[in-house]
Amino acid sequence: MSPLKDRPSTVGYRLEGRIGVLELYFGAGSSAFAALVALEAAGAEYVPHRLDLAAGDQRIPEYLSINPLGRVPALVVDGTSITEISGVLSYISARYPEAALIPARNPIETAKTYEWLSWFSSTFHMYVAQVLRGERFSDDPKVREALKVSGRRNFAAELSRLDKAAEDATNGLIGDNFSIVDAFNLVVWRWSEKLDIETATFPHWARCVRAAFARPFVQRAIACESTTERWHPAHRASA
Amino acid sequence: MSPLKDRPSTVGYRLEGRIGVLELYFGAGSSAFAALVALEAAGAEYVPHRLDLAAGDQRIPEYLSINPLGRVPALVVDGTSITEISGVLSYISARYPEAALIPARNPIETAKTYEWLSWFSSTFHMYVAQVLRGERFSDDPKVREALKVSGRRNFAAELSRLDKAAEDATNGLIGDNFSIVDAFNLVVWRWSEKLDIETATFPHWARCVRAAFARPFVQRAIACESTTERWHPAHRASA
Repeated sequence: MSPLKDRPSTVGYRLEGRIGVLELYFGAGSSAFAALVALEAAGAEYVPHRLDLAAGDQRIPEYLSINPLGRVPALVVDGTSITEISGVLSYISARYPEAALIPARNPIETAKTYEWLSWFSSTFHMYVAQVLRGERFSDDPKVREALKVSGRRNFAAELSRLDKAAEDATNGLIGDNFSIVDAFNLVVWRWSEKLDIETATFPHWARCVRAAFARPFVQRAIACESTTERWHPAHRASA
Repeated sequence: MSPLKDRPSTVGYRLEGRIGVLELYFGAGSSAFAALVALEAAGAEYVPHRLDLAAGDQRIPEYLSINPLGRVPALVVDGTSITEISGVLSYISARYPEAALIPARNPIETAKTYEWLSWFSSTFHMYVAQVLRGERFSDDPKVREALKVSGRRNFAAELSRLDKAAEDATNGLIGDNFSIVDAFNLVVWRWSEKLDIETATFPHWARCVRAAFARPFVQRAIACESTTERWHPAHRASA
């Protein structure tokens, strides 16, 4: 049985009797930041668990039973693990409709939201992986070096598009309000910083991002990243 | 202004007075097949436009005004282009709720649907690109060769997970019925054939796929791929 199936996972979650509680597994500085932002924007009650990705917390069996792909974020809801950033953001926006995190007045707007999420996660994320996760592609240092060059170049090219799209954005990149697309956009910004891309070259996008970072719920998400204790199954058992 | 914004595109669509008509731009054998399957499963009325991807139809200005990324599918709805397979499938399932193409009885099921779509489009699709679209990564033949090897290996490794997930599937990979996840799954199957992966190694998944291909609406989608005339703006102008 794969935890990707829509079934209760085998996490020791129900045992604790915290049915209905949301638990977010994240790594500081990862794409899971979008989920933290969305949860804070929705005013959600949730239990954050910070994995130390550099130490390999995402590869221990206890975490692989939550997300067999060994990636963050994972959101555990009533014993079911939701993974992949699109899945997690979909759940948060549906559970807290009053936060209007998805501009879902009609099917076209909903579809455009997923179009953007997909653009971010398949295109930008792939280029980031080329630059920062070369080991996923090859063991050969020369191959990795070549991938770094093309990944960085292609990432910047996509940012030009994003900057154009941001040109007439007001409160959000799509729709009238801050949405899950804006939450994920902050991760794209952080990726570009990791890739040493000169973000000043993209003024419209930079304006959008600065406005978003100034929001109190984004500040709370940042604080959560740095103040949450490191998760470890042993802590859970003794809790 | 980017066509990724939720705005009417500048396609000559409204001029024709066909407001409300769905137009699907696809390439035979591409991931757009999932959109064709979903439209046929929903019993939708739509106008299919077949691009010849080998001839570069996706890069002519008339198509770039529909999808600036130059990729298929694109679904034009009331003058708005929806792109990215997740976006297109989201729209189709929302527009035809009676077809139950998204197992959306609750937010968890909806989220799991997007989790699967994301897994397919970011993970599998990236490996396919490594093998079949090496030019996106590097001009160096040695680099491309190395990417082919790792892409093919990683794709097969993901199929093991998919086969496990398919083990207790009945009518659909998730939920009780055929869903947009199953539509996209057929594209994953075709990709694995293009990559010469021995699909018999994945018996549960193969069973799921065979059952899906036997469905009349999937057969109609296949027929549509081969019988639709090649799209060209000139044909539209003279129509």
